[in-house]
Amino acid sequence: TPESAERTALPGVATGLAVTGAGGDVLFIEASLADKETGPTGVTLTGQLGDVMKESAQIALSYLRSHGAELGLPVGDLAERNTHIHVPAGAVPKDGPSAGVTMTTALASLLSGRPVRSEVAMTGEVSLTGRVLPIGGVKQKLLAAHRAGLTTILIPKRNGPDLEDVPASVLAELTVHPVSDVREVLDLALVPAQVETRQYAA
Amino acid sequence: TPESAERTALPGVATGLAVTGAGGDVLFIEASLADKETGPTGVTLTGQLGDVMKESAQIALSYLRSHGAELGLPVGDLAERNTHIHVPAGAVPKDGPSAGVTMTTALASLLSGRPVRSEVAMTGEVSLTGRVLPIGGVKQKLLAAHRAGLTTILIPKRNGPDLEDVPASVLAELTVHPVSDVREVLDLALVPAQVETRQYAA
Amino acid sequence: TPESAERTALPGVATGLAVTGAGGDVLFIEASLADKETGPTGVTLTGQLGDVMKESAQIALSYLRSHGAELGLPVGDLAERNTHIHVPAGAVPKDGPSAGVTMTTALASLLSGRPVRSEVAMTGEVSLTGRVLPIGGVKQKLLAAHRAGLTTILIPKRNGPDLEDVPASVLAELTVHPVSDVREVLDLALVPAQVETRQYAA
Amino acid sequence: TPESAERTALPGVATGLAVTGAGGDVLFIEASLADKETGPTGVTLTGQLGDVMKESAQIALSYLRSHGAELGLPVGDLAERNTHIHVPAGAVPKDGPSAGVTMTTALASLLSGRPVRSEVAMTGEVSLTGRVLPIGGVKQKLLAAHRAGLTTILIPKRNGPDLEDVPASVLAELTVHPVSDVREVLDLALVPAQVETRQYAA
Amino acid sequence: TPESAERTALPGVATGLAVTGAGGDVLFIEASLADKETGPTGVTLTGQLGDVMKESAQIALSYLRSHGAELGLPVGDLAERNTHIHVPAGAVPKDGPSAGVTMTTALASLLSGRPVRSEVAMTGEVSLTGRVLPIGGVKQKLLAAHRAGLTTILIPKRNGPDLEDVPASVLAELTVHPVSDVREVLDLALVPAQVETRQYAA
Amino acid sequence: TPESAERTALPGVATGLAVTGAGGDVLFIEASLADKETGPTGVTLTGQLGDVMKESAQIALSYLRSHGAELGLPVGDLAERNTHIHVPAGAVPKDGPSAGVTMTTALASLLSGRPVRSEVAMTGEVSLTGRVLPIGGVKQKLLAAHRAGLTTILIPKRNGPDLEDVPASVLAELTVHPVSDVREVLDLALVPAQVETRQYAA
Ligand SMILES: [Ca+2]
Ligand SMILES: [Ca+2]
Ligand SMILES: [Ca+2]
Ligand SMILES: [Ca+2]
Ligand SMILES: [Ca+2]
Ligand SMILES: [Ca+2]
Ligand SMILES: [Ca+2]
Ligand SMILES: [Ca+2]
Ligand SMILES: [Ca+2]
Ligand SMILES: [Ca+2]
Ligand SMILES: [Ca+2]
Ligand SMILES: [Ca+2]
Repeated sequence: TPESAERTALPGVATGLAVTGAGGDVLFIEASLADKETGPTGVTLTGQLGDVMKESAQIALSYLRSHGAELGLPVGDLAERNTHIHVPAGAVPKDGPSAGVTMTTALASLLSGRPVRSEVAMTGEVSLTGRVLPIGGVKQKLLAAHRAGLTTILIPKRNGPDLEDVPASVLAELTVHPVSDVREVLDLALVPAQVETRQYAA
Repeated sequence: TPESAERTALPGVATGLAVTGAGGDVLFIEASLADKETGPTGVTLTGQLGDVMKESAQIALSYLRSHGAELGLPVGDLAERNTHIHVPAGAVPKDGPSAGVTMTTALASLLSGRPVRSEVAMTGEVSLTGRVLPIGGVKQKLLAAHRAGLTTILIPKRNGPDLEDVPASVLAELTVHPVSDVREVLDLALVPAQVETRQYAA
Repeated sequence: TPESAERTALPGVATGLAVTGAGGDVLFIEASLADKETGPTGVTLTGQLGDVMKESAQIALSYLRSHGAELGLPVGDLAERNTHIHVPAGAVPKDGPSAGVTMTTALASLLSGRPVRSEVAMTGEVSLTGRVLPIGGVKQKLLAAHRAGLTTILIPKRNGPDLEDVPASVLAELTVHPVSDVREVLDLALVPAQVETRQYAA
Repeated sequence: TPESAERTALPGVATGLAVTGAGGDVLFIEASLADKETGPTGVTLTGQLGDVMKESAQIALSYLRSHGAELGLPVGDLAERNTHIHVPAGAVPKDGPSAGVTMTTALASLLSGRPVRSEVAMTGEVSLTGRVLPIGGVKQKLLAAHRAGLTTILIPKRNGPDLEDVPASVLAELTVHPVSDVREVLDLALVPAQVETRQYAA
Repeated sequence: TPESAERTALPGVATGLAVTGAGGDVLFIEASLADKETGPTGVTLTGQLGDVMKESAQIALSYLRSHGAELGLPVGDLAERNTHIHVPAGAVPKDGPSAGVTMTTALASLLSGRPVRSEVAMTGEVSLTGRVLPIGGVKQKLLAAHRAGLTTILIPKRNGPDLEDVPASVLAELTVHPVSDVREVLDLALVPAQVETRQYAA
Repeated sequence: TPESAERTALPGVATGLAVTGAGGDVLFIEASLADKETGPTGVTLTGQLGDVMKESAQIALSYLRSHGAELGLPVGDLAERNTHIHVPAGAVPKDGPSAGVTMTTALASLLSGRPVRSEVAMTGEVSLTGRVLPIGGVKQKLLAAHRAGLTTILIPKRNGPDLEDVPASVLAELTVHPVSDVREVLDLALVPAQVETRQYAA
């Protein structure tokens, strides 16, 4: 879709799904790393995040700090550059654990330099070992993704039964991937790394 | 106008627009960098800022810490000199995300040494990737800018439709720029850098 | 059981037992150590833990910081790598001292590289000297463990009399070990270290 | 007056004006720098100051940290010696932005070694760029200054119209200086630096 | 008694006396020092301690930090190893100053390597100079100590008159030492250091 | 008196006067410096002190950090040794600025090694420049000092008129010194330094 294409054009932004009082909604999770020469390191979280969502960010970071090297990510950047995760819109309070996979994906995208596919949205809690745990609001989230023109949706495997509640006409236009480990999320969501040999092509 | 001309005479001050209980209002956002020999570095925020507005300041700083070097700004100063952002009047509580572009502009003005144009006012939320997101109160803000004699107004592109609500007589006396990226804001708001060759003129 | 087998497949996860409003429940306590090159060290606790449960984590860590070397654990890792303890599900508030043995076991598993046996669940407060102190809800916890297919249960020795309240048909299918020192817990819960000589086998 | 003469005899104390429930009052703002060998540096604020008044102190310090060197002040002391600002009486809560000029003056007096003139009292908010912004209670403050025997009063230029409310008989005995920049305050309030050549006089 | 004998078998645990809603009770105060290679130093306090009881721990530590060397204790350990004081049961809130002597004794036991005598219980506030100040609940505390089989009880000298309220039959089975300085407490409560020459015996 | 003689026998303890719900009372303010090898430095305040009283302690410390060297005190100790100020009884909340002179005296006594005279009690707020400011409750405080057998009382000069309210029979047995600067307090309260030449006497 136009918006997700614009928002995820550069590495560091992933498309999540949320439940609001008015149904489901799409949200974009942005991650950035400060240039090294700009000062102190640490983690900055903004977007009026509630306690549970702040913990999700800590879990996403700890997952990458203990497993990111195995995934080939340059995790030393997390030590040397201030990490900031922001969830617009700035004035809207947000909470809950279901952005865990989206936060992990935004950070992995930023570290890898691989943008997130613009047609992909995702939802799921992540545990410290990378397991994708079930969340609520699958029906509203898929309807929101569909309305926004997103076509590939990643949901926790244990939420599979909730797909029954989604109208068949909507499901027919979506590719839904039930996942149980955040590595599957990263494989499905990130644009493949550019083939290195292209650089040397004549 | 006299006041904005005085207030923005030196780099580090940008003119923003706010909504208050009594309509719109102009506010000046001031940024300063402590001299290096005066001690510890960090970020100081004053002006009775609410949580959302404090987060806007963190986003403005993180944007410059990750993208400022690309804009030619001496971002190493943010590491070596304490950064202070203040929004007078000191006793008036302020909140909301719409000062994001103004804070980013005040900081970029300070770092670049380029003052903000005295006829320019602005409003808009900024995301971590520099996108300008829509805000509220466009009508009241433009009326306030007009009353204050400001003539060039920067608003988020997605607030374009709100211009319909502004009286034509007012709009006729304003140049309104809808913007979608904070780089456009900086291009429009900052006085161009002095031509270096002048220094060498005989 | 399938779930505990999956969850405890790798070192760093231990199976605990809790009492909820709806009876007993199984919970998995996850521990991780960040790779050294990823930045600052310290302790991160997540999972919406209450004050008493956060203190349990501090006690578990202090126990290992003063007694872990005697148990042959590489406790220097606690200084050089950020330690994170998480208790899913992320949005469910949890409290109480009875996860002390489970937290100690998850950390000892992680440090030793020895996974926790998948058939073992445990409950018990731990003191700073490693004593296992009595807890509440033995009946509900054992019923929950039984429902989840867990077969070896570690409880505080001083809770022995509470076993009278557990239906004989359930007890018949469980092996219950009353323990008084956390060293007994570790001996019973951790898979033995692999025989080193296998590495050199031809 | 006797009291302000005693209180401002040494550098580091400036006479301010406040509004209380019972009219106006004179208050003395004290600043001190710890000797270097006495330990950690930082900023200590005491006197039961409210949030706005604490921010005034931060603004005064940042103003001097970025502009003090231009004024010839030894601002490196702010890095190397703990800075303490205190406003007696210790048990009386105080708040508001109008002590900004007084705090800036007390600090500049301390750094310069130039005492504050004993006949001078002042009131005014200070911005980060050194502008003196308008405050409330001009009438009560001038009456209080007059009662206390103070004869030279510095007020914000934008408060000029408030002088109409002050009885002519009082105004006739006061010299009131409306000021718009804190540099004017320092010029008017600080005793001139001793002529250096006196030290070498025979 | 069996429990205090087990609990105080190793250095670092002292037996205190508390007043609860249900009369008096015995509590065990545990202290531990982390191994140096396990990371950052500081003080950890757990056991749901109230503000006054946390201050007692700070006083006990400061007493040993300023007077411990005079008592021959290796106080450098307090700088190099994280100090943890815990008071089980973990979920029971505790407060009040009367555990001061017990905390001081647990720490001195740990530092000296001398266990606390298993028949000794104690109660008393400690001041920063080591004075033992009077406390409440002497009768309930002595009854609780007696029920628990403890036989030597240390109380503040100024609580002497409270012994009148204790049944003569109970007092007859207790040795009560009124003390006024914490040094007396340590002399009475700690097992004498092992005679060094035994190590060299043939 | 016996109690103040015991309490102030060693340097670092000064006798203050307070007003309670039940009239006046004597309190002892204790100061200690940790031995250097015991770890981190800073300031610890205990005794259930309220905000104003904690600020009094900060003012006392800052006064000595900026003026103590002029008084011949070894103020470098404040940097190298943790400073603790405690006001027993530990469980009694205390507040107000009138212990300022007593805190300053306890610290100066500790640093100088000169004990506080056992017959002296004092009350008075201290400002950052060492001025002794007036306090409340003079009558109750003097009655309490008299009851406790204290004979030399230091009060703020501006409280002189309050002596009218004290019964003549009590005043006749007291020596009251009205003071305006904390240096007078130290001169009157501290036992003179021992004559150095005694050390070398044959
Ligand atoms: Ca790893
Ligand atoms: Ca989501
Ligand atoms: Ca960059
Ligand atoms: Ca539990
Ligand atoms: Ca050990
Ligand atoms: Ca458990
Ligand atoms: Ca400057
Ligand atoms: Ca003022
Ligand atoms: Ca000592
Ligand atoms: Ca006790
Ligand atoms: Ca000095
Ligand atoms: Ca006092």
